[in-house]
Amino acid sequence: MKSIAILGTGGVGQTLASKFLDLGHKIMLGTRNVENKLSETTKDQYGNLPFKEWFATNKGVKLGTLKEAAAFGEIILNATKGSESINALKAVEQKDLEGKILIDIANPLDFSMGMPPRLIPELCNTNSLAEEIQRTFPKTRVVKTLNTMWSGLMINPGLVNKGDHDIFVCGNDPEAKEEVKKILKSFGWSGENILDLGDISAARATEMYLPLWLRISAATNFKPMNLRIVN
Amino acid sequence: MKSIAILGTGGVGQTLASKFLDLGHKIMLGTRNVENKLSETTKDQYGNLPFKEWFATNKGVKLGTLKEAAAFGEIILNATKGSESINALKAVEQKDLEGKILIDIANPLDFSMGMPPRLIPELCNTNSLAEEIQRTFPKTRVVKTLNTMWSGLMINPGLVNKGDHDIFVCGNDPEAKEEVKKILKSFGWSGENILDLGDISAARATEMYLPLWLRISAATNFKPMNLRIVN
Repeated sequence: MKSIAILGTGGVGQTLASKFLDLGHKIMLGTRNVENKLSETTKDQYGNLPFKEWFATNKGVKLGTLKEAAAFGEIILNATKGSESINALKAVEQKDLEGKILIDIANPLDFSMGMPPRLIPELCNTNSLAEEIQRTFPKTRVVKTLNTMWSGLMINPGLVNKGDHDIFVCGNDPEAKEEVKKILKSFGWSGENILDLGDISAARATEMYLPLWLRISAATNFKPMNLRIVN
Repeated sequence: MKSIAILGTGGVGQTLASKFLDLGHKIMLGTRNVENKLSETTKDQYGNLPFKEWFATNKGVKLGTLKEAAAFGEIILNATKGSESINALKAVEQKDLEGKILIDIANPLDFSMGMPPRLIPELCNTNSLAEEIQRTFPKTRVVKTLNTMWSGLMINPGLVNKGDHDIFVCGNDPEAKEEVKKILKSFGWSGENILDLGDISAARATEMYLPLWLRISAATNFKPMNLRIVN
């Protein structure tokens, strides 16, 4: 049992929080302003119910500020919007990031030019969100994973093809990656379906997959989908 | 039987030319300078033999200038380097492109910063090579396909997973896409494995997959590989 902080309270953060809770971990979600978050009454841009409705049915999940969550977690997940991730991480005590594993599952989506979203230009092709996080917080052990699929599939790979499809992991710290692989296995991922792509610069490859994922989803009626590598 | 022009004489152009020849089509490869091409004596950057050695064993394939090839082909394939494609297409008589299907299989790789290559910044994220070609030659019917895998697999999908893996097609002209799908089927692709991603702007998604393809290949010992979409 670990203490896990999830920065970001959207649908992805909620899905992961529920799963970690089921697995017996202690969970705190972190948000900029707790009162504001609990007073929301409208659905978010993805159609998720107001946060308080989910929160009321997930007893045991704690809610705190970004700072409180980072202090709480032995492991920290970044599930904030990619456009806000660096600022969210700068808002916490830097000592609360040092030496810890930070699992970055965000994507640097840019909705400013309409749909489908582009990637944020400065975080694309010659850079990536995960690299930018690693560069900005060099003492944090950043591992990029889970960013290539719908959150329902992240924590329940068996939903499609009996779980036989692939997930990517990358990062500069081999031990951190092994810890993260254990977490993925606890979600139901088989070791054969976890592909280690190398150091954190491989995150630009998995983040640049986003446009293809979105196009494939649109062409296949938005059914839950993932990739299986065949060779 | 069709007259098919392939612009570009590298390994990809050669592989496709051999296959089209086997299928009974008439083929002309187009290059900037025929004499120079036939006088090459060294392997290219991918380790392919000098062009003349391949050419000597593929009787029936014609070799001409880019201009001659474009005039010859009812259908034109762009198999030039992505960094040179627009200039190569500008070098032909523009009337020889008008109304024709141009199958763009090139990728806008940028090797200037070392390996693995980046994409050419101006042809990434908010643009793509195929879109740039379509914009530059608006009377040509551009279809993007085949750019997401090794050339050996393009023309022989049965090499892995009994041919059950996926290939993408996109373009603005529905009839042109149907013609191209017939060509893919003649290569051995099943209709269920050909996914139409929509208009030509989807090419930015398939081109941006390149970094992931290269990382997956490196992580799986460069075995021939492709993706199967599971849902």
